[in-house]
Formats: sequence, C-alpha cells, structure tokens
Amino acid sequence: MGPDVKKGHIAVQNVSPRVDGGSRRAKAIVGDAVHVEADILRDGTSMLGAVIRYKSTGDSRWSEAPMTQVDDRWWGRFQPTAVGVCKYTIEAWTDRFATWRRDLSTKIEAGQDVDVELEEGALLLEAHVPVVPREHRKTLREAVEMLRRPPTSGGAGFEDPRVALALDPALASVMHRHHDRTGGTIYKPALELTVDRERAEFGAWYEFFPRSTGTAKEHGTFKTSKKLLPLIADLGFDILYLPPIHPIGETDRKGKNNALTAAPGDVGVPWAIGSKDGGHKAIHPELGTIDDFDDFVTEAEKLGIEVCIDFAIQCSPDHPWVGEHPEWFHHRPDGSIKHAENPPKKYQDVYPVNFDTDNAEELWLELKSVIDHWIAHGIKIFRVDNPHTKPFPFWEWLIEEVRSEQPEVIFLSEAFTRPRVMSELAKLGFTQSYTYFTWKNTKWELEDYLTKLTQTEMAHFFRPNFFTNTQDILHEYLQTGGPPAFKVRLVLAALLSPSYGIYSGFEFFENTPREQGSEEYLDSEKYQLHPRDYSNRPGTLMPYIKRINEIRGKYPVLSRRGNLRFHPVDKDNLIAFSRSAPGLDPILVVANLNPFHWEEGTVTLDLGALGVDPFRPFEVQDLISGASFMWHGPHSYVRLDPAEEPVHVFVVRR
Amino acid sequence: MGPDVKKGHIAVQNVSPRVDGGSRRAKAIVGDAVHVEADILRDGTSMLGAVIRYKSTGDSRWSEAPMTQVDDRWWGRFQPTAVGVCKYTIEAWTDRFATWRRDLSTKIEAGQDVDVELEEGALLLEAHVPVVPREHRKTLREAVEMLRRPPTSGGAGFEDPRVALALDPALASVMHRHHDRTGGTIYKPALELTVDRERAEFGAWYEFFPRSTGTAKEHGTFKTSKKLLPLIADLGFDILYLPPIHPIGETDRKGKNNALTAAPGDVGVPWAIGSKDGGHKAIHPELGTIDDFDDFVTEAEKLGIEVCIDFAIQCSPDHPWVGEHPEWFHHRPDGSIKHAENPPKKYQDVYPVNFDTDNAEELWLELKSVIDHWIAHGIKIFRVDNPHTKPFPFWEWLIEEVRSEQPEVIFLSEAFTRPRVMSELAKLGFTQSYTYFTWKNTKWELEDYLTKLTQTEMAHFFRPNFFTNTQDILHEYLQTGGPPAFKVRLVLAALLSPSYGIYSGFEFFENTPREQGSEEYLDSEKYQLHPRDYSNRPGTLMPYIKRINEIRGKYPVLSRRGNLRFHPVDKDNLIAFSRSAPGLDPILVVANLNPFHWEEGTVTLDLGALGVDPFRPFEVQDLISGASFMWHGPHSYVRLDPAEEPVHVFVVRR
Repeated sequence: MGPDVKKGHIAVQNVSPRVDGGSRRAKAIVGDAVHVEADILRDGTSMLGAVIRYKSTGDSRWSEAPMTQVDDRWWGRFQPTAVGVCKYTIEAWTDRFATWRRDLSTKIEAGQDVDVELEEGALLLEAHVPVVPREHRKTLREAVEMLRRPPTSGGAGFEDPRVALALDPALASVMHRHHDRTGGTIYKPALELTVDRERAEFGAWYEFFPRSTGTAKEHGTFKTSKKLLPLIADLGFDILYLPPIHPIGETDRKGKNNALTAAPGDVGVPWAIGSKDGGHKAIHPELGTIDDFDDFVTEAEKLGIEVCIDFAIQCSPDHPWVGEHPEWFHHRPDGSIKHAENPPKKYQDVYPVNFDTDNAEELWLELKSVIDHWIAHGIKIFRVDNPHTKPFPFWEWLIEEVRSEQPEVIFLSEAFTRPRVMSELAKLGFTQSYTYFTWKNTKWELEDYLTKLTQTEMAHFFRPNFFTNTQDILHEYLQTGGPPAFKVRLVLAALLSPSYGIYSGFEFFENTPREQGSEEYLDSEKYQLHPRDYSNRPGTLMPYIKRINEIRGKYPVLSRRGNLRFHPVDKDNLIAFSRSAPGLDPILVVANLNPFHWEEGTVTLDLGALGVDPFRPFEVQDLISGASFMWHGPHSYVRLDPAEEPVHVFVVRR
Repeated sequence: MGPDVKKGHIAVQNVSPRVDGGSRRAKAIVGDAVHVEADILRDGTSMLGAVIRYKSTGDSRWSEAPMTQVDDRWWGRFQPTAVGVCKYTIEAWTDRFATWRRDLSTKIEAGQDVDVELEEGALLLEAHVPVVPREHRKTLREAVEMLRRPPTSGGAGFEDPRVALALDPALASVMHRHHDRTGGTIYKPALELTVDRERAEFGAWYEFFPRSTGTAKEHGTFKTSKKLLPLIADLGFDILYLPPIHPIGETDRKGKNNALTAAPGDVGVPWAIGSKDGGHKAIHPELGTIDDFDDFVTEAEKLGIEVCIDFAIQCSPDHPWVGEHPEWFHHRPDGSIKHAENPPKKYQDVYPVNFDTDNAEELWLELKSVIDHWIAHGIKIFRVDNPHTKPFPFWEWLIEEVRSEQPEVIFLSEAFTRPRVMSELAKLGFTQSYTYFTWKNTKWELEDYLTKLTQTEMAHFFRPNFFTNTQDILHEYLQTGGPPAFKVRLVLAALLSPSYGIYSGFEFFENTPREQGSEEYLDSEKYQLHPRDYSNRPGTLMPYIKRINEIRGKYPVLSRRGNLRFHPVDKDNLIAFSRSAPGLDPILVVANLNPFHWEEGTVTLDLGALGVDPFRPFEVQDLISGASFMWHGPHSYVRLDPAEEPVHVFVVRR
C-alpha cells in the first residue's frame, strides 16, 4: 500500500478544554461562553483561518464561532445552547488569499516587481468566483479584470491601481467571509462537554433533618418542615438538602451518640435505609406520606428552593431487598450477611450492597429506578452518599443514563476520600463534589487548595461545593473560635466558591464535639431528634447569612469560578482575595483568620486583576458595614477585630 | 441493551509517560530504565497489586516489571530491550489476600473476635490452591487446615496460633508471588515508546564542509577530508555532520557572501542540490566519487566516528527531477518555476518541491528512496534541513517507514522556527531537534529554557541538541566575547545537554559577522571555500574541546537528560548547575557569563540534589584546572576571571 499523501498541511494540537486526552468531558453551563484554545500549525509560512464548530444536544447542524491567534496559539469562545452534551471541534484551513495579499505587500515594500504575483492573484480570484454568493461575483470578476490590466502610468508600487485594488479591504472582506476551506482539516474525534443548568455551578445549600423540625418529644414531619421553608427562602438559600427520608431499620438500630444498642424511642440513623415499611422508594412513616413529601417539594419550589435528596446505596437488615434479593449482599461463612465496616469501625445497622453479585444487571437497573422514582416526584438534585465505595463503572453508567433522559439532573458527590479518587468521580460524571474546604483553615492551605481547584486541569471537570460543616464534620476551628470563626468560614465558603452550603446548627453557632479531638457533634442528630428554635433570629448568625447570600445574588462575579485572585498580605492571619471579570463589579474580601485577636496589616493589591487605574484613587465600599474608603495605589492598610467584624467584603468602584 | 456490569472496579488514569493522550510516542534509549507512573484507583479500601507490562520490537511475549505505590500514585521502571517500538501498559488487580490479612490485623488490634474472618481466609486459600505451582499447594492446604482448627488455649489475639499462621510472612510471600488477577484490569490501548540507540541521546557533533579541507585554491575532497578524521576523533567527537555532498547547480548560482551572481570559479551553495551530474543520490564531482565517500565513511567508523549527512528537500534548477518531474514544482503564470523565497528574501538558486502535486505518491516514494540509498552507503544519521517547510504527514510517514526497516536511524530536525512547530516535529517522529540554545545567553534565559526542556512534558518527546554555532548562526555573544565566550558556550552546550555540537571555525574562535547586527559569518563557507590550518592546535580551542569531551566520556551522569539542577548564585553573571543521579559522581558547573570581567559571588548549593551530607565537609575537584577545594555546607564563594578561566567544572566527591 502506498503512502496516504492526502493528509494535508495542518495539525491541530493541545486543544483546551480536553480532559484525559478527550476520553472524558469538561463541564460547562448553558449560555456561558466556553473558552477554547488550540495550537494550529502548518508547515511553511501560509496564513490560516480557523473556527470552533459546536453542536448542542438537539441541534441538527453544527454552528461556528470565530477563532483568533497569538502566534501559533488560537482561541475563541462559544455558548452551548442546551443542557446535555455539546460536541465541539476545530476546523482550520489555509487562507490563500490572505497569504497572497500579505506576500504582495511585503514584496512591494521591498520594491520588487509583482506582475506575476498580480496574475497569480487574478487566478486565485477567478477560481473563487463560483464559491461566493451571486451578488459578490461581479466584484470578483471586476477585480480579476483589473488585476490583468497592463501596468499603467497610474503609479508604481502601492500607487499602482492594480495593487491598490488587490489590497482593498472591501475585496479582502468578501474573500474572508466566503473563504475556501479546501485542503483544511477538522480536529477528530470531536470533543464533548457536559452542559449543565446554572444551579450546577451556583447555589447556596442548606442541609437539615426534617425530623428535627418538631419538638424535643415530637418527631418532625414534612408538615412541620414546611413551616420552615419561608425562613430558609428568606435567608437566601437555593437548595435544601435532606438526609435520607426513607424508612429506618429496626434491627441493630443505633442509639444516641452512636450507642451500639438503641433505647426505646430512639429514632435511628436515616442512612440505615429500609424497614417493613419499604426501601429506597418509600417515605419514613414518621415523616409523613408521599403526598406530604410532594406537597413539601411543591411549596419549596414556590419559594424558589429546590429540594435535594440523599442517594445512599446501602440497606438496613430490614430493607425489603434483603429478603427479595439476598444475592445482592455479602454472605459470610457463618451464614450472616456482612455489615458495613471500615476496620476496626463497624456499622452493624447497615449492609453494603455487593456489586460483584452475579445478578448485577438487575441491581443496577433497580438502583436507577430509584433515581427515576424520585425524579417523578420532582427531585432533580441528588447528594450521593459515599460514591467512592461503589464501582466507578456503575456511576458512569447511571449518571449517563439518567442525564441522557433528564439532562438537568445534578449529582453531588459526597467523597472526602483521596484526591485522585475524588477527581475520578468528577471526571466520570458527578456534577459537583464535596471538598477538603472544611479542613483548610490557614492562609497557606486555602491559597494552595484554591489554586489547585481553579488553576489546574481540575477547573475543567471538578466543581467544588464548599460546605462549612456537615453532620459528620465539625472542625476544631469552629469548636474553639466562637462566632467570629463561623462568620469567617461562612464568608470564605460563600465568596470563594459559587456553590457552598451549611448544615443546620451552623446558624446557631453549634460547636460542641462529642469529645475532645473528635469532629463529630455531641448529641448528633444523626442518632436523635435535635429541634431548634428559629424564632430568635437576632442572636444567631441568620442575619449575617442572609446578608452574604444577598451579596452573592447581587454581584454576578460571585456566581462563577475562574475569576479568583489572591492578594498578598504581610500577616499570616490576614487573607485577601478578589473575584473579578470583565464588565462586572469586582468583589474584594479581606478576612482575619484569627478568631481570637485583632490583626492589622498591609494588603498589596493586584490592581490589574481588579481593573483599577493605579494612578487614580478608587473607592471600596464594605458591603457588610456599609463604610466606604478611598484607596490609592496597591498598598492598603487593614485592621480587623473579630470582636467587631472579622471580614471586609468590599465592592470595588472603578 | 442492559448495562455492561462487567467492567470491574479498577481505574488506571494519568499514566506517564503518555504524549498527547497516547496518540504520540514518548522516547527512550534501549537498556535505559523507563520510569512509569499512574493513578491506580479502586472503590472502597481493598488493596491492589500492579505491574508494568511491556513488549519490545521482536519480543513474542509481554514482560512485567513490578510497581509500588505512594497513596494512589504507583510507579515502576522497565528497560526496553531492543531499538524500535516498545509497547507498555499497566495491569492492576485487587489483592484479596493482602486485604484480608490487613483487615485481620486491624480487627485483632481492636480486640475483635475473628473466627469468621479466619474461615473467610481459609476459603480464600482453598480457592487459591489450584493457582499456585504444585510445590506450594501443600503449604496452602496445611494453612487451610490450621485456620479451621477450633480456638485453642494456645493464646488469644496475635498469640492465637491460627492468627500467627494467617499473618506468617512466608504464606504471604507464596500468595504474593502467585496472586490471582481475576477481575483486574489492563490499561488500554497500550502506549508506545520510540526506543533509540544511545547515540540518539548522547553524542558530540562536529560539522564541517568537506570542500574546505583543501587549500585556498584547491577544492577539498573526501580524500583530503579523510586526513582530518584522526584529529576529529582525537578531539572526542562522535558524529561528523556534512552539509549536502551532492552536485551543486550552475543556474543562478550564488557568489561569495550571497552575491546574486557567481563569479567564475565560485563554488556555489551545497544546498542548491542537483546538476547534470545528478541529484540527491549523487556525489558532487569536485568532492570525489561514491567510492571516495564510502572509503571516508569506513575510515570514520574505524575511528569511532559516525557520519551524518544532510537531507534537504529542494533542488537547483539543474536537478534531474526538474526535467523528469516538472509536476513536482510550482509553475507560475508566466511559465517559470517558482524559486524559494521568504518574502522579501529570494533564493533564486533553489526550487522548493511542491508537495501538493497530483503526483505526490511518487514524490514521497522517491524521497524515501534517497534515504534508503544513503543507508545502503552506511549512513544512519540524517540532519534534516528545514523540515518545517514540508508537510507534517510526510515526515510522520517517512520516519515511520524508514525506522520500521532500520530502527537505528536517527533524524535530527533543523528547525529554528516557532516552539510549537518544533514540538510537533519532535512528537511526530524526529529523534532530535536543534534548539534555541544559541540565543539563550543570560542566566535567566538559560534557566528558563532548560526548565522548559527538562521539567515539562517536552522531556518525554523532545531531545535537544545544543549547537554552539551553525553555518547560519554566529551569535553576537561570540562575535564580541572573544575566547572566554567560546569557552563558556562550549561548556554550557556540552555539559547542559547530552547531545551538543560545534560547527567548524568555533575551535579557531572565528567570530567575524558579515556586517554589524548580522548573525551570518563574513566570507561564509556556504558560498566559498574556507580552508583552515589545523596544525597549530595550542593556539586554538582544540585542547579545551578535547578536555570537555573527555569529561563527558568519563562521567556517565552527563550522558542523559533529566538530572539537571540549577543552584542559586547571588550574581546575575554567575550561573551554577549540577548533573547528578543515584550511584554516579555528580558534576557541578559554575560559569561566569561575563566574558569581559571577573565576577565573584556565593553559590547556595542544593546539597540534597548533590547527595552531599550537609554536616560534613566535602571535596570538589576542578576537572579543568585540577585544583581541589574542601567545602562545607551549602554556601560557597566562587570567583571566576575570564582572563584565566571562566568556568569551574567540579566533580563532587562524597
């Protein structure tokens, strides 16, 4: 077989975004511009043209967006028009007319004779006549005729009327708009983006246990929970995350503070899913009926709140699956079913599912039917419990299947495990991920971690959700730092990350650990009811939370990642960062990470990142205190006293 | 169609080396260890095992090399055993026995009852009996029997003899050596390496024009060139690169100093290839016959020198192809054939080849036959002139075809063009590449450039060859800096890069440009004879070159890339770097980049990189002056006077 000589001249390389060599998808938000870059290379010195080609779910044809170059690196932007999957690629071609025009100019500047070049141009235009729309053909034909005229006394060099025509911008414009892509190349295979709705990127999350909305003696229900919705909406939360709402097992139920044996009346752990009352598709009877749940979801929706439920693939010993599908569980040599464990820890009230079962296909389909069931009840956001203990291929399949039918569904990965596993889960399809934010409390840790999240390839596929706390994690910083610590962590979570959340109790400064050195809450509501008095708002963090969520809503620069800049401060306890983007008001945050003592220092601002003229004064207004300051140049003194207010949240007026 | 539930648990990701997502090959040297890394991930907490699998050209079976882990990142090394292409991949599996053993230990430490666990272990071992070689089966059967004994009074916990056996290292060793890979995964598709012989990585190059080995009046020949071979060998050069040796065109021949018209007797430009005496397969008659050439190559080989010839795809107007294959050239509207140009520059004595010809297949095959022709005459190294002006797919095809038949062939890419194009040429197959080294003369430039070459993905596929000068580039630093500048640039080229070269004249300190601001040589031998007097060696750089090449030969750490470290010096004109690798003597170079004045300063050594104990004195010996110094700790004073010696080349004694 002879050589394949038809491969052409152009190589498209190092396309960005491209995850794992194109085998995985980067993530985007519908309507947001996607910034694409590539090396576009050609042998020799001919000029090139290039476009991005893209096609959203539902589009029948490819659209195009222009690309421009800086040396051999080209870039452009396009906007996916629908949630789902958007394909994109790059088409590049040799721009023969532009090359001819450039070389003609160069030769004339060098005083060279260009008669033959003009005839070459005439041939180029002549061949191009059939390519352009009818109304431009006359222009080209006239140009051909003009280029072929003999040299006149009209002038030489650029004065030659033939040359003037050859270099006429109007002619170039016709040729540019109706260029010839013959011999060009299209990058293959096309890459793909996962395109999500905005809530995948931007949202304030609130987690609460519906059962804690009653009283100390009365189990809360969806009816009592519903009464809290106006308050949650007023605080500015977008998403309300509920731990599992399914029947809780009786067998080996845990007691208060994780006691091995439950006392009479103990309510059990919601993650011990399943009882005689049903499994993953049922509602825990003590919370109410499915109608109560539907009513609750509808009411939330009216208030602008989306309900997220928990998807935890595990069963209490009483789950119907245990009897119906014993093959889905690990049987031990003594005949018992293996309970969950992380040696030496044991979770006697929970059976993990055995994905290595011979009947895996039915298992996978049943699990998908759980998601489908709740989608039918209006749920479009799932917080997935411990995804890192189930096989990667299962998640890849499940998320792809669900999203091919319901592309607006969002999956939040609860994985506090090793970073490479968290990345893998994000790459295979999870929309968002929990993060290590709870454990990043010093300036160095925060800057280092945020740099990894926003400045590396992770930015393309990993969407962090910064929870300040969870039912499992009460960090020592909150245990010891008092209200200033809560304020600082709230501001960092909410203003560093477009997606952030709090677990209830945070707004009440709840901070007592089960024991010293533990990150578990004392009297954790994982094991018992924990009613709270939401009526006395001024003494809580609620007004502050409301203000921070208002700021997030008012300043669109806070609603996307990728616009973060840390600014040096000459004190380890003072951190400064800004969020800025062309055309939007920049937000500048300075926080005192020391909750015990005031700190003062000098911030050295990157004024370029803020779009501020270094030679003119500019105003910064603190959106919390309302105070305004006139600053000038990059160096600014700040003093923050946690006894008063541990952070500045400035909007920069330019 | 149901879900594919058989995909297993393990994901292998982010394999290194992997160029362009696996679509291109990384490069390696036969017999050298290739360092491989990968993320190997599994859901849950089971322990894993992994190996590299590899298969060199000619191997009928895959070999394996062990991998070890640091968290989820695994690494290992293997040695390709033949030049050509080596495939490699990673196999990973769940190590059920190791997992069981670890969990058993943990549970016993926590004081838990492990009777059921022991039976689980017995089942595991029992199932494993058929897997192990016959001689180990008894061991397993006895272990099974032991694990199933009832609890005795022999002891509890770790004292229990059943537990002692379960944790016995001898048993673990049998199970480790004969493990079960069921349910594991093999990374697909396998990646590929280009495996070269050592000369692809390590060699000292010398370029000369054979025609300059005569006298001012007498055209040099292969016979006169042959007389220089012992001297070149004595200087320590490995490769002798000859500009084109083919008949030179008469039509539009250039005169001295690139004059548009040749005077009678002018010898022309060797790159204007082809005359009535033949084309790319012929020898320029004034150099001698093909027998003379063969004789020259044979003699060089005897002296340990390999001859490299130039492959320049372009033709003088007198080249036989112009008459035989007019379709291989660009014809202009006036009937002329288009000569080479880079507007406004014109190369009237050269026709470029038109790769867009309809007869491209015959052209490609003819070009390959040129390479084959010279391979048949003993040439295995080709310096390719201006590869960036010919289509990338052509080079990809040519190099692959040639190397599939002759894998030891080396292609050096002469491309001083844009960095992304140079990378592309390296990725598509060129063995080595010219670099920007000639233009990197300050400390910052050198450190920045070398960091790019050695610390980025480039290190996997781009092998730099550092020429100090070429027939086209005489840098201003050499024009003005005198002998100290030549010494510094020689040391930098030869000791920063395993492949380096000089173009003749360098050893005579030739440094006169055609005019001020030009990088061209005055009276360049591109256009005329340039005989040199090699007899007076002491007054030249030759003894110094010989010494540097001796050092390169004596210290193996200098023969590979990837072991470079720059050390801070508190003066901009002083640069310090070391080359070090486990088990080899480290070389430390300190150079004064200012050829006009002495400089003194303090080097802050990274003693860890040098393998030096920071708390004990160590000896450094200057391999140029012979002087030894005792140093202690990281800070050392240096003073270098260009009038004496502008560099230290230390070997560090540990």
